[in-house]
Amino acid sequence: MITRMSELFVRTLREDPADAEVPSHRWLVRAGYIRRAAPGIYSWLPMGYKVFRNVENIVREEMDAIGSQEVHLPALLPKEPYEASGRWTDYGPNIFRLKDRKGGDYLLGPTHEEMFTLLVKDLYSSYKDLPLSLYQIQTKYRDEARPRAGLLRGREFVMKDSYSFDIDDTGLEKSYQAHRDAYIKIFNRLGFEYVIVHAMSGAMGGSASEEFLAVAENGEDTFVASPGGYAANVEAVHILAPDPLPYDDAPAAHVHDTPDTPTIQTLVDYANAHVPRDANADVPRDDRPWTAADTLKNVLVMVRKLDGTREPLAIAVPGDREVDLKRLAAVLEPDEAEAFTEDDFADHPTLAKGYIGPGALGEHNASGIRYLADPRVVTGTRWVTGADEPGRHVFDLVCGRDFTPDGVLDVAEIRAGDPAPDGSGPLRLARGIEMGHIFQLGRKYAEALGLKVLDSNGKLVTVTMGSYGVGVSRAVAAVAEGTSDEKGLCWPREIAPFDVQVLATGKGEAVLQAATDLARELDDAGIVVVLDDRKASPGVKFADAEIMGMPTSVVVGRGLADGLIELRDRASGDSENIPLDEAVARIVAVVHGRPSIA
Amino acid sequence: MITRMSELFVRTLREDPADAEVPSHRWLVRAGYIRRAAPGIYSWLPMGYKVFRNVENIVREEMDAIGSQEVHLPALLPKEPYEASGRWTDYGPNIFRLKDRKGGDYLLGPTHEEMFTLLVKDLYSSYKDLPLSLYQIQTKYRDEARPRAGLLRGREFVMKDSYSFDIDDTGLEKSYQAHRDAYIKIFNRLGFEYVIVHAMSGAMGGSASEEFLAVAENGEDTFVASPGGYAANVEAVHILAPDPLPYDDAPAAHVHDTPDTPTIQTLVDYANAHVPRDANADVPRDDRPWTAADTLKNVLVMVRKLDGTREPLAIAVPGDREVDLKRLAAVLEPDEAEAFTEDDFADHPTLAKGYIGPGALGEHNASGIRYLADPRVVTGTRWVTGADEPGRHVFDLVCGRDFTPDGVLDVAEIRAGDPAPDGSGPLRLARGIEMGHIFQLGRKYAEALGLKVLDSNGKLVTVTMGSYGVGVSRAVAAVAEGTSDEKGLCWPREIAPFDVQVLATGKGEAVLQAATDLARELDDAGIVVVLDDRKASPGVKFADAEIMGMPTSVVVGRGLADGLIELRDRASGDSENIPLDEAVARIVAVVHGRPSIA
Repeated sequence: MITRMSELFVRTLREDPADAEVPSHRWLVRAGYIRRAAPGIYSWLPMGYKVFRNVENIVREEMDAIGSQEVHLPALLPKEPYEASGRWTDYGPNIFRLKDRKGGDYLLGPTHEEMFTLLVKDLYSSYKDLPLSLYQIQTKYRDEARPRAGLLRGREFVMKDSYSFDIDDTGLEKSYQAHRDAYIKIFNRLGFEYVIVHAMSGAMGGSASEEFLAVAENGEDTFVASPGGYAANVEAVHILAPDPLPYDDAPAAHVHDTPDTPTIQTLVDYANAHVPRDANADVPRDDRPWTAADTLKNVLVMVRKLDGTREPLAIAVPGDREVDLKRLAAVLEPDEAEAFTEDDFADHPTLAKGYIGPGALGEHNASGIRYLADPRVVTGTRWVTGADEPGRHVFDLVCGRDFTPDGVLDVAEIRAGDPAPDGSGPLRLARGIEMGHIFQLGRKYAEALGLKVLDSNGKLVTVTMGSYGVGVSRAVAAVAEGTSDEKGLCWPREIAPFDVQVLATGKGEAVLQAATDLARELDDAGIVVVLDDRKASPGVKFADAEIMGMPTSVVVGRGLADGLIELRDRASGDSENIPLDEAVARIVAVVHGRPSIA
Repeated sequence: MITRMSELFVRTLREDPADAEVPSHRWLVRAGYIRRAAPGIYSWLPMGYKVFRNVENIVREEMDAIGSQEVHLPALLPKEPYEASGRWTDYGPNIFRLKDRKGGDYLLGPTHEEMFTLLVKDLYSSYKDLPLSLYQIQTKYRDEARPRAGLLRGREFVMKDSYSFDIDDTGLEKSYQAHRDAYIKIFNRLGFEYVIVHAMSGAMGGSASEEFLAVAENGEDTFVASPGGYAANVEAVHILAPDPLPYDDAPAAHVHDTPDTPTIQTLVDYANAHVPRDANADVPRDDRPWTAADTLKNVLVMVRKLDGTREPLAIAVPGDREVDLKRLAAVLEPDEAEAFTEDDFADHPTLAKGYIGPGALGEHNASGIRYLADPRVVTGTRWVTGADEPGRHVFDLVCGRDFTPDGVLDVAEIRAGDPAPDGSGPLRLARGIEMGHIFQLGRKYAEALGLKVLDSNGKLVTVTMGSYGVGVSRAVAAVAEGTSDEKGLCWPREIAPFDVQVLATGKGEAVLQAATDLARELDDAGIVVVLDDRKASPGVKFADAEIMGMPTSVVVGRGLADGLIELRDRASGDSENIPLDEAVARIVAVVHGRPSIA
């Protein structure tokens, strides 16, 4: 069946939508693939839904290929299982909750670990039933604080989520690997650049986890990668703590007046002008200048717990680094970090703002505020830091001698050039979109919900689980993000809504007739065709074809008098005139990935 | 790919689930097709989801065939469009409502007229863009007061809903007819018995509408049909009012003592013992006895409006008929009828319970209660009815002379043998499950939401719409309801999860090997096979095959020594031994609907 542009429910837009921040959002709306229904909630128009279904199909095929079985669970879920796992509370304001007419509590499922655990518990009881892998492609909900970027961060979206059930860790390892392999195939077929990185497990719980990130400038995630193959989401990087240093020769700590030095930069400048290397030396130091790396910055935040209470936290990082708020958020989740306000300072009079040091911090010191330090702050390291009096800093303060933090917190920013924790070389940083996430959950949900089976000795054992997700609707945007250009969308062949766009350009019945005949012959040959049969100028048709982004288009127009049509390749921009009577064979070959244009 | 029962996520149950009232619910659960997740909310297990997807596919193909275009709208919808149409209120407690983290009001969509109207308004502006037909296959929500019967009346379910947009009524008529034709094809392919009946439009609004009902003893809907082709949901029957009768010769109304006759039966018995035909005649009457049809029953109900207020209503029906509460509910919707309680009687002291008559009823009489009469109560009809005093009735009370109701209300029960309103013969009654509903909506939503386009004269005109639904998940149950028997499910070929179930029965590696080889050859021949390779007794495998309901099964077992296998037809129960070496060809022929078994 040929789709005709004159009938297709689509309108391309000449202007960017006002709220479009990223190319995928801009072009999917402008090309008539999606429309916004509410914040973070989109309707799929005909072409968009074709792409969506093509992506869905790839995911389904690869899941079937690893023997995962498709099921379909509800989106409207009862509260009880999520209470048993703790996530009813842990999700905080991030899920949609509602009551039914009888006052029963429900949620719109953000992910289905609990329901799958209960389903398997319901049906299975023996180790002989395992391993088992189940998946669904299903609509999910998250009440995002800031829905943005069109389909990239929506509130209603479609995910493939799957769950593996094994009797032991070896089984889980195998199931995890099977999913990892399937994901590689899925993302290869979708045709965008991606990386596999170590990831945080977050609220999901569990141990090992990896993310598949589509490499994209506008991605919300930052990842690091080393020449030696280390790759991780910055949230998941665990920096290597250096060995402790001897400090027997270290001079005693000494306090200096450092007026008007509330920031690291002012402190470093002041020190270079006024503070010697040690008590016996000159100013300025003769070996090297003081640098920000010599200082220890103490950052205060308030941690808001899910129950609404707030608790102060002090974080020590080398002064040449900031606290990375996303790394901090990932560690604190489901609690959240908030700014430490003037009121909070007023409540803690022992804190000398701008001059706070280890002397006031820690559970056993004046403020009683929990004090956690960057892993680089090991025993024997010497620091310039606040002396807890306005306008004064202490020098040569030695960790393990002069102060001891309450613990370690690895949330300082990661910088390009930092060494990979596994010694595989300097890190580079880039951004990506989370497209898939695979988790070795372990026994968290099975324990919470009592999923046990009899093992081969007749003993009840708790099942171990994995959980695996692919953002299906998000993948449509991620592909668009990676492949669109300044003219519009540009689909990889396997997920394009149509194989070929046939444009009838030029006046007269003959052109439209020839274009229609060609479209029909292509359709007979199994090619999925959209025919631009509108009464519109060639310019409009060319522009729309470029915005809509079919991989191949065919122009039937001016050349027809000479028996020629024009074949265009959207990605390369190449075009070629070919004889009309060879057109079908050539186009079929192009669509099937054989001889390309020109 | 062969599916192996040893790996398939399924458990058949030997017992009926406690809450199963109907065969489809019982067997879908027992055969491992669905599991309950919450009241009226189900999970699809692998086989169930295959059936669901097969049904979905049929619906999609037939919608595509009439040129309807598939889109996909969200389930989580903003309040505003539903406020504009009035349905935010009209739906009362029947929809799920929720708030997002910012306090915005949302609903889970029960049907999408508003959103489609806005979508088309968003993109289209000219008569040249029409006609247009859009559809989606999407998850819907209704907070049913009494979810029941498994998938038949759930709270989360999948519908195909489509919407047509036309410039004028002729166009709407054509779009409606195209849908009607597509539905006939869909329901023919699904393979259950159905009828097309006139229907009420209810809260949806609009004029003409028809329902497709699957004929089923356990259906919630009752329909009538005549030999001459009239068919209607009982809710939609409009009975023919007889012509008025002359009443010049009618005797004056006369009141009789009728002690202890609060019911129609006691009244008729008393009248036959004590009341003559008229003042000059004997008792008992000599022409015919008094019957219930001579009496006029006045039924009181309270109407609860959506705003919570209650208003009394009196309904007069011939004494030989009851008020049909479903017909009444359909007329009152979205208001609801409630019982008239003792408290309500106490509030209306002019009502003599058991002896209420037209003398007390009506907006201008003592009680002031609105009084509506059955269409049969025409001018000139003579009635025995309450005299508004305990123990007394009035005889020969003539409508139009002695009393005049406030209006007509056609809610009396329809009985087998009643004449069809179009004169096409006596009605029969049967029950059905609503599987499809097609509406000529007209301009209700387009007007409420401002969907206008320019006509050929450049004038803005309001678009006219149709709305069309098919219960996709419900269809799975309706087919099961129509085809299951006392042994289990029995799928029509086109929607069965597997074409063939191969059972390896009997001990020894040879049997399993032969069964596996056969399954593999069938798979190679394009047949979708499930292989029962479990270590289980033949009895268990036979029983499971019958519960699970594949159209054809093949038993590889005892006969193998003689080179024979057994072919079984689930629907007929027929079986036949055939040579193993002819098996593939024979089975392929059976699956493709050619030579059947034996």
